[in-house]
Amino acid sequence: MNNYRITMQYDGSRYSGWQKQGNTTNTIQGKLESVLSKMTGSDIEVHGSGRTDAGVHALNQVANFKYRTNLNCREIQEYLNTYLPLDIRVLDVTEAAPRFHSRLNATKKHYRYIIDTNEIQDVFTRKYRTHFPVSYDIEAMKKAAAYLIGEHDFKSFCDNKRMKKSTVRTIEAIDFSVENGILTIDFTGNGFLYHMVRILTGTLLEVGEGKRKPEEIQKILQAKDRSMAGFTAPPQGLYLIKVFY
Amino acid sequence: MNNYRITMQYDGSRYSGWQKQGNTTNTIQGKLESVLSKMTGSDIEVHGSGRTDAGVHALNQVANFKYRTNLNCREIQEYLNTYLPLDIRVLDVTEAAPRFHSRLNATKKHYRYIIDTNEIQDVFTRKYRTHFPVSYDIEAMKKAAAYLIGEHDFKSFCDNKRMKKSTVRTIEAIDFSVENGILTIDFTGNGFLYHMVRILTGTLLEVGEGKRKPEEIQKILQAKDRSMAGFTAPPQGLYLIKVFY
Repeated sequence: MNNYRITMQYDGSRYSGWQKQGNTTNTIQGKLESVLSKMTGSDIEVHGSGRTDAGVHALNQVANFKYRTNLNCREIQEYLNTYLPLDIRVLDVTEAAPRFHSRLNATKKHYRYIIDTNEIQDVFTRKYRTHFPVSYDIEAMKKAAAYLIGEHDFKSFCDNKRMKKSTVRTIEAIDFSVENGILTIDFTGNGFLYHMVRILTGTLLEVGEGKRKPEEIQKILQAKDRSMAGFTAPPQGLYLIKVFY
Repeated sequence: MNNYRITMQYDGSRYSGWQKQGNTTNTIQGKLESVLSKMTGSDIEVHGSGRTDAGVHALNQVANFKYRTNLNCREIQEYLNTYLPLDIRVLDVTEAAPRFHSRLNATKKHYRYIIDTNEIQDVFTRKYRTHFPVSYDIEAMKKAAAYLIGEHDFKSFCDNKRMKKSTVRTIEAIDFSVENGILTIDFTGNGFLYHMVRILTGTLLEVGEGKRKPEEIQKILQAKDRSMAGFTAPPQGLYLIKVFY
């Protein structure tokens, strides 16, 4: 069996997220598996580096699948880009080591959240940024973010109530930039829980709006209670930028 | 009567162009008139600086309409942005001189055509750039463009066969830039005929691909025959950037 590693870019607007759900094929994984199954004539199971929610985008999502085929990587990439819709593009296909697993081997992920803070929302990026016409206090947000760096139990920032596994994760960096009213927040860490980046963003935005003090982050972490943290920021501003191995 | 000048940005993807067509309101003008008529309780006619084709975008389209109202400019803008769809935004409303006419008083227009020349089309801008994965010879295109600068009869670059008025126009500048495989062509001139920017772009791209020599432009201009010029580049890469008065 060959083990193929695929790197993809997608516009999540039209999809119910990455993960296949029962019979619905309106997911990125579903689209990919359906084209690969057509290509090979067999049922192919694709493993993604992680789920992305409905409406969330990816610049470099990584997935892998196993199959023995005579096609080379370039031919697989061209087949996929011919039959996949234009809002999913395969950037790269390579042969990976036999034991490579896109989720289990991931060591770090980089997510980005983009907010259009201008009074009038840019029409061309309306599906790719969240529009909050608010003058955020970036310095307060940076102070709040500092409490989140390092290893913590992020249970308060997880929307999965039935989560049985550890909710301890390490955030390496949270960086802010503002240009022409576009606020970008970059998150890197060893892993992120269900909705974690969106709840972190929502909580930081509440700090930036003056609704919470930066110091509150400590209490929220300690509480291990989702209701203590801020709102879940909407999906269209979120991007999976890169998966590290 | 007050004369209001409106500056608008729109994503043309969903629309049949600027101009109202019979009963269809699926045009930018139609949407604008319908919201203004709701606002005023009267039939309002909006004059645009010029038509944009179906699928063509605008960063700063200018229009004007006459009406006596107690609402100030800011209130009109807010009303429009509340009731217009999110792919049409009003950037500005001001009171213009009584005789101001957005089309008749325009002295210069700036259009931009954007081509994604990368092998794999960026998913996020697929409706906002034309994808031609071609390695264009920009120097040849610049040579060809030089023949187009100045006052010429652009009949060969006009898709309106029944055009009875003058087809003489002045092109002030055609500028090229390439960044990360994105080719941008900026056109400024005192006016552009039906499909003119798209035919100019198509012809220049044929030069850049080596299908025509730059010198052919002279013959095309002299022929005053549409069939001599290149193809009409697709609408999604075209933007009305600015109207000058």
